[in-house]
Amino acid sequence: MPVPASREACEALDRADPLSALREAFVLDPATVYLDGNSLGPLTHAARRRVQETVERQWGQDLIRSWNQHDWIGLPERLGARIARLVGAPAADVLVADSTSVNLFKLGAAFLACARAGRGRVVSELGNFPTDLYVLQGLEALFPGRVEFCAVPRDGLEDAIDERTALVVLTHVHYRSARMYDMAAVTGYAHARGAAALWDLSHSVGAVPLDLAGTRADLAVGCGYKYLNGGPGAPAFLYVRSDLQAALGPGIAGWMGHEAPFAFDDDYRPAVGVSRFRAGTPGILGMAALDGSLDVFDGVDMTAVRDKSVALCELLIALVESRCARHGLQLVSPRAAAERGSHVSFSHPDGYGIIQALIARGVVGDFRTPDVLRFGLAPLYTRYVDVWDAVDALLAVLDHGEGRSGDYARMQLVT
Amino acid sequence: MPVPASREACEALDRADPLSALREAFVLDPATVYLDGNSLGPLTHAARRRVQETVERQWGQDLIRSWNQHDWIGLPERLGARIARLVGAPAADVLVADSTSVNLFKLGAAFLACARAGRGRVVSELGNFPTDLYVLQGLEALFPGRVEFCAVPRDGLEDAIDERTALVVLTHVHYRSARMYDMAAVTGYAHARGAAALWDLSHSVGAVPLDLAGTRADLAVGCGYKYLNGGPGAPAFLYVRSDLQAALGPGIAGWMGHEAPFAFDDDYRPAVGVSRFRAGTPGILGMAALDGSLDVFDGVDMTAVRDKSVALCELLIALVESRCARHGLQLVSPRAAAERGSHVSFSHPDGYGIIQALIARGVVGDFRTPDVLRFGLAPLYTRYVDVWDAVDALLAVLDHGEGRSGDYARMQLVT
Repeated sequence: MPVPASREACEALDRADPLSALREAFVLDPATVYLDGNSLGPLTHAARRRVQETVERQWGQDLIRSWNQHDWIGLPERLGARIARLVGAPAADVLVADSTSVNLFKLGAAFLACARAGRGRVVSELGNFPTDLYVLQGLEALFPGRVEFCAVPRDGLEDAIDERTALVVLTHVHYRSARMYDMAAVTGYAHARGAAALWDLSHSVGAVPLDLAGTRADLAVGCGYKYLNGGPGAPAFLYVRSDLQAALGPGIAGWMGHEAPFAFDDDYRPAVGVSRFRAGTPGILGMAALDGSLDVFDGVDMTAVRDKSVALCELLIALVESRCARHGLQLVSPRAAAERGSHVSFSHPDGYGIIQALIARGVVGDFRTPDVLRFGLAPLYTRYVDVWDAVDALLAVLDHGEGRSGDYARMQLVT
Repeated sequence: MPVPASREACEALDRADPLSALREAFVLDPATVYLDGNSLGPLTHAARRRVQETVERQWGQDLIRSWNQHDWIGLPERLGARIARLVGAPAADVLVADSTSVNLFKLGAAFLACARAGRGRVVSELGNFPTDLYVLQGLEALFPGRVEFCAVPRDGLEDAIDERTALVVLTHVHYRSARMYDMAAVTGYAHARGAAALWDLSHSVGAVPLDLAGTRADLAVGCGYKYLNGGPGAPAFLYVRSDLQAALGPGIAGWMGHEAPFAFDDDYRPAVGVSRFRAGTPGILGMAALDGSLDVFDGVDMTAVRDKSVALCELLIALVESRCARHGLQLVSPRAAAERGSHVSFSHPDGYGIIQALIARGVVGDFRTPDVLRFGLAPLYTRYVDVWDAVDALLAVLDHGEGRSGDYARMQLVT
């Protein structure tokens, strides 16, 4: 694709975009270009309605009866089934619960508890999203002598996955660089060495086509608040391949994961399937928002989403490199679209200040210490003109040196 | 207090009730007597407004900036400080996070990971709320040989707490009977034997005065959705006595519990204090509802709450026993107010059917298998006339045999 030379050319791309109508589902400020959906997806009208209905009608009026009447009790599985389509999994193999961190802990603890003697190593990547590293370090601390945590540079992964390795834990799309693993290849490599693969899909789900079943991935977790637009701190999800479900304990044995929670038995018996990974009572307001937010994905072809994601990312890279060339921005993300997720990162010594100046101009991206500018391109609502306008603003910020006064005093929470 | 002989006498009690104005804070259907606030507290106007503002203004408009601008990032500690007053703890020692089950797991795993050799026993009570038993059984399964779980009948607790015991885990007010432990006495007994005490306050907080600091309780967890009225599946809380905080790991090491989450370091370093027990990203919508729901407690004297709770419970027992005497209901809860929390349970062979018939008449209590009728008396909004009307309806149900056709096919989710 030739680089569009004008805003009008971008408008033409938007007119030809088969996904353009989806933008209407979102509550978006026309004065803002929001390129931070990889951190916190925007509100949809459906999510707003669902929360309101849940608060006012279900909690406010129907109260305790809503657990049955509005099937609150079934939300973790129902939402899991909706997300399953987006991650290429059978509907019954995905559950929505807790946070990504807690879900990773549950699956990690469950899996490592039944790892064979001498197979206690967990391999991950240095620079992986911190919570993945921390949860695994925490498992090592809780199970001294049984779990050995081992984080290596990306190019050392093949060597690190050996006969001692029980589990490989990787983030499919890297939070900083957007570098994307070949899930099938890495999973196959792990399997060939007798290890299992657990994928963190937080920066993939909703933006990148996924095929958990086809790649034979063993386990996965992911986030509800980025490209799924489920709201701040939305409940997360987990996946367990069906043939593994019966052998795994729950990680955290809570009453909602019991085979018969309302029998109030003294003894724990895990529910069949992924339902055993329900631990405590599900947070219904967060679930309601996520349920509403998933409506926009109904009937959407993830291949079309990917096509637009690639086109938006390519456009951003091309425009930055052609229009801002003299300002020293370096592409951090892979140049090859096939190796990249749905955000694009650049480095610049004044990165923090540039992001602050962009926000002041109504272009919301985010900053990652020490020098990374990160822009999320969400195909369901990001337009080609948004990319044009963002680069316009970036060029103005750079031309006027607006980023030079930035400091690190208050960094945003953006993941 | 003599038993009021009429509805008018109950109205007089309501007029004299110093807490009566608090009822205005709640969204309540005038046609319903809601005696299930010990399962799911009702919506308050403040919680409704807070959720709406959080969705529409903070998420919808301010988006990612809200983590700083509206201090989403500080909600777990801010809400912890609000709950601290209700549980008799220093503000800095309580954190809101996750579910009760997950919090119990975190504290249990953290504490048991540093238990001395030969001190791996966890003692609890048979018939305790199931999730407490299940989480502890799960810890035993995850740490074979290191953790030994031991549940005994209540009258066997003293014998079970011995030199092998690391931790005693009890629910302060029993979910079924409302029987209340003397927290100071049991904690002191555990300490005298070198064990620590972890209290589940789910059925206490918001209805019963608590003094975690004064009783020297070591650890506690509790629920946000019962008497705190935080909404369905509201985030829960945890307490760690300040002198224990530095020695305990986080249980689940997540990025939000890191000393510097936004430094994105590869290595986990726990935050100072209870903040290390933050694991994943907090669920903001649930936090917002809980924040709003706590407004009604501002300035409320928990002694006055307790006085009214006792009076309501005594009234219910007296009216049931005097007016429904011939129908064979048996008091399950302790008769002595000092040994009872804020709900009252009776048993009856037709318990399930009776509760269903009561609900059909607009009186919402709940049922606990196999034969327990449970009525929660929430002093912030339950009136003396509500108790009168509930017993009126109960008498009618019993007189007309309406409860006999009930079956167990669909039990409510009520804890």
